[in-house]
Amino acid sequence: MSHELFDRHSKTLNAALEAIETRAFWAAYPEVPSGKIYGETAREDGLNAWKARLGKKADTQQPGTQGWVGGEVSPYGVELGTEYPSPDLDVLVPAAVESMKSWKRADAKTRTGVCLEILDRLNKRSFEMGFAVMHTTGQGFMMAFQAGGPHAQDRGLEAVACAWREMTRCPSNATWSKRVSKTDTVTLNKTYRIIPRGVAINIGCSTFPTWNSYPGLFASLATGNAVIIKPHPGAVMPLALTVEIARDVISEAGFDPNLITLACDSIDSPIAQDLVMRPEVGIVDYTGGNAFGDWIEANVRHAQVYTEKAGINTVILDGCEDIKQMTGNLAFSLSLYSGQMCTTPQNIYIPADGIDTPDGRVSFDDTAGALIKALNWFLSEPARAAEVCGAIQSQATAQRIESAAASGATVLRASDPIENEHFPEARTATPLVLQVDATETKTFQQEMFGPIIYIIKTSGSAESLSLASEGASQCGALTCAMYSRDEKVIEDVVDTMTDAGVAVSCNLTGHIWVNQSAAYSDFHVSGANPAGNATLCDAAFVANRFRTVASRIPVAAPVEAVS
Amino acid sequence: MSHELFDRHSKTLNAALEAIETRAFWAAYPEVPSGKIYGETAREDGLNAWKARLGKKADTQQPGTQGWVGGEVSPYGVELGTEYPSPDLDVLVPAAVESMKSWKRADAKTRTGVCLEILDRLNKRSFEMGFAVMHTTGQGFMMAFQAGGPHAQDRGLEAVACAWREMTRCPSNATWSKRVSKTDTVTLNKTYRIIPRGVAINIGCSTFPTWNSYPGLFASLATGNAVIIKPHPGAVMPLALTVEIARDVISEAGFDPNLITLACDSIDSPIAQDLVMRPEVGIVDYTGGNAFGDWIEANVRHAQVYTEKAGINTVILDGCEDIKQMTGNLAFSLSLYSGQMCTTPQNIYIPADGIDTPDGRVSFDDTAGALIKALNWFLSEPARAAEVCGAIQSQATAQRIESAAASGATVLRASDPIENEHFPEARTATPLVLQVDATETKTFQQEMFGPIIYIIKTSGSAESLSLASEGASQCGALTCAMYSRDEKVIEDVVDTMTDAGVAVSCNLTGHIWVNQSAAYSDFHVSGANPAGNATLCDAAFVANRFRTVASRIPVAAPVEAVS
Repeated sequence: MSHELFDRHSKTLNAALEAIETRAFWAAYPEVPSGKIYGETAREDGLNAWKARLGKKADTQQPGTQGWVGGEVSPYGVELGTEYPSPDLDVLVPAAVESMKSWKRADAKTRTGVCLEILDRLNKRSFEMGFAVMHTTGQGFMMAFQAGGPHAQDRGLEAVACAWREMTRCPSNATWSKRVSKTDTVTLNKTYRIIPRGVAINIGCSTFPTWNSYPGLFASLATGNAVIIKPHPGAVMPLALTVEIARDVISEAGFDPNLITLACDSIDSPIAQDLVMRPEVGIVDYTGGNAFGDWIEANVRHAQVYTEKAGINTVILDGCEDIKQMTGNLAFSLSLYSGQMCTTPQNIYIPADGIDTPDGRVSFDDTAGALIKALNWFLSEPARAAEVCGAIQSQATAQRIESAAASGATVLRASDPIENEHFPEARTATPLVLQVDATETKTFQQEMFGPIIYIIKTSGSAESLSLASEGASQCGALTCAMYSRDEKVIEDVVDTMTDAGVAVSCNLTGHIWVNQSAAYSDFHVSGANPAGNATLCDAAFVANRFRTVASRIPVAAPVEAVS
Repeated sequence: MSHELFDRHSKTLNAALEAIETRAFWAAYPEVPSGKIYGETAREDGLNAWKARLGKKADTQQPGTQGWVGGEVSPYGVELGTEYPSPDLDVLVPAAVESMKSWKRADAKTRTGVCLEILDRLNKRSFEMGFAVMHTTGQGFMMAFQAGGPHAQDRGLEAVACAWREMTRCPSNATWSKRVSKTDTVTLNKTYRIIPRGVAINIGCSTFPTWNSYPGLFASLATGNAVIIKPHPGAVMPLALTVEIARDVISEAGFDPNLITLACDSIDSPIAQDLVMRPEVGIVDYTGGNAFGDWIEANVRHAQVYTEKAGINTVILDGCEDIKQMTGNLAFSLSLYSGQMCTTPQNIYIPADGIDTPDGRVSFDDTAGALIKALNWFLSEPARAAEVCGAIQSQATAQRIESAAASGATVLRASDPIENEHFPEARTATPLVLQVDATETKTFQQEMFGPIIYIIKTSGSAESLSLASEGASQCGALTCAMYSRDEKVIEDVVDTMTDAGVAVSCNLTGHIWVNQSAAYSDFHVSGANPAGNATLCDAAFVANRFRTVASRIPVAAPVEAVS
């Protein structure tokens, strides 16, 4: 086995392992899209490389390609025209099975080294990836670079490190020696092998195709499985680029590049159901909407299933030290990528009698008004608004905003388009803010993906908490932001919401937002409510992607020291 | 929190953790039923304590008891007459939920300490447990003591240690500090909480009620869940005794004893389906036959499911150094507990042209004959046969032997009763050995639980391996014993069978048998074929019994050293 790649990246791996243990801040891949870090021409090179992909076939040289599918349109209004392989599954899936034969026999160091090298190469292509992510998801470039590049790579590295930790917990060999009588000792040489689960299907989403797919992809690959990526038809390019880079590294390392392939489809002829139900499949990673995620959870019994779906994130306002700081922080959270993050708040609970501040109670209307004011101020600068809000990924989200606005709820703030000087055709929308009463649960206790926010008037923070927790238990939730000056309220919210499987952020102001989930420190999705059955990234996320199977054979007893 | 129990047993825990890492031999609980270890009167005391249970109500003082069920009959012919609580699930399950409220808020040390103390108390009652296991399962006393007592306790401790390791991988608190600009640093205090899955249902089996139930029971309890044990109606007493002892320890430690309760039923009115489908249930551990195990895997979608079912274990004979040593070893493996271990071999593959030995090839007939001879010799001494074979747990197994004998396959060795001087009414049966051809897959490629052995004539070791691996992949398998003098054959068998998720034992002779699975070293069931979806005991067995959910709040940045 060659451990050259492992040795080359072992410092990075060790630092990741340490970060996972301490859960302090750490990042392997710089998040600043700076020429000083990535090379003075990196941005220009990345842009050109991205442009060169447009209107071409993305030929991954994988087997079983029976046709080509395309149709990605940038939410910024650019026709991409790139085409991707549409596979004959009866050829592609057996090729994936075949590719595992030598890969599963490689040792953990070899496989981990290959994964670390793939991540390193991905990092070097972060600008190209940034443009690919921007023009499929609609994220602003800064976010597309960060979330699609270094942050996604860090989430991938986190998964590789977790997989490494699990694979190396049991030694490959052990000597087991038992005194069975006064004179006899039985000694066995035991060999423990890592047996992969089978072909891993990785179903990508349209909003964070790399960030959400990398953990499962790398966890599966590191533990000996082959991976077939089924991208969302609207966000193929970031994963096609990933597959290209990974296949290169795998080939160079002397393994079968069919360990990672792309299975593309179209909205009209989806293949994901056929793909996940194939008997060769041992693992399914899914990120996306609840309908298909629930279907996978209910129907895929022959494979390990890891889902990251969606839910109703909440904000509980009870009090704050500085209403401007609070609403400023929330305004950014609500605007970022036009509410298309699975961590963006949707329901904001405010007591009818207002919130507690150092200057006394601020009324419900004034609190809601302060939030609207903060949003309006933040969005008043078109260049800033365009960069932070980006564009709306899908037409369905744009339509959802319209129908929510027309639903009869009181509109506190209308959604409007953002002027984008670089992309005048961009599909844009600022946050729509609606006010409803606590009794209107049918309206707000459902996921409304996109920049749609409900401000809910409750009888007090106890009711706010009870509604937030109910929503999480019934529909799932990833995050809860809460603001309070009362230790008892904070304790109650943390108790109740963490019991409901929701990560709680208390009193955030300044440069930290509830939407953020940091690799090595924050668990993304808890697996403890309907928003998903797994978390990024704990031992449970990786430990069941392989099995350990042993053989044992008697050997001569080890020589004992004379006592 | 009180860490007194944890501190008291921390040496044991640390030794267990070390054994799990090295996978060398270690045991916390002495397996020899000796008065010197357990106290000179321990056997007598245990026997009397067991006798005192007969014909009485086993009142665990748990809520919701609406009636009493009994009907255990010792396979040795003794009417037990003990009665157990039959619960109103609408009372019992909510009581289990309620009991978790304080338990889940206790820290990992406190919960682990309570589990370690329960195991210690169970160990002190090993003789009483031995009689309870013997007279429900039909095991000989020595085996009932060992497998039902210390070995089961070691498997339980292994699970507690694995759970401890998982719970302590993520710190309870962390400081996360990120430089967000040239002048600003964001510092968050993060708190990580362990959130249990919910009520854990533990469904026991009739043959190894403690050994198979303890890992799931202790893994669930240690990670904050409440456990409801649903014993097999034929083997309740060992688990009732376990629950009694556990409830005492839990109460003494200041927690709600309803963290562990007993839900008993009868063959005629089973409750397991109703129990596992309740919404409060977060975990199901199941040991038993494939039919109900498959049903649970297919239907329980709302809970984590861990199954240990059954399969077709195999022996591949290719050659050996000493045919007498080989057949002697196999004769014991086949006789032990009359083939009622889930690790006992069923199918023995022998090439038509015989096997390779230092004295040349030994023909098929002579190899089969040597095995029959070894069995006959071993079983010729009634006292030894009675102790090793024990009794047949269920009437269904006894009938299965009869119908297999009458199935038309060539009977190489008929099953016969064993004279048991202590228990003349015991239901006993020595191994039935049948010969079939490799083409008769419908006969031998199915699980025939009990002392039923097929000797299968194959075209050679390649066909033997192919049939053994097919059986494992289709019907599951836990073990494969193989004997060969050819390194290439050994390598092929290890490659193919471990790929099929089967633990391989090579060339065992003397005091070590294929049926044995040692805590801390051997993984029991692989989870990689239909014999079960989990293994005793890896990280995957424990890591998903709880979730980690965080809260975060800004704090003043830590003071940095002046650089």
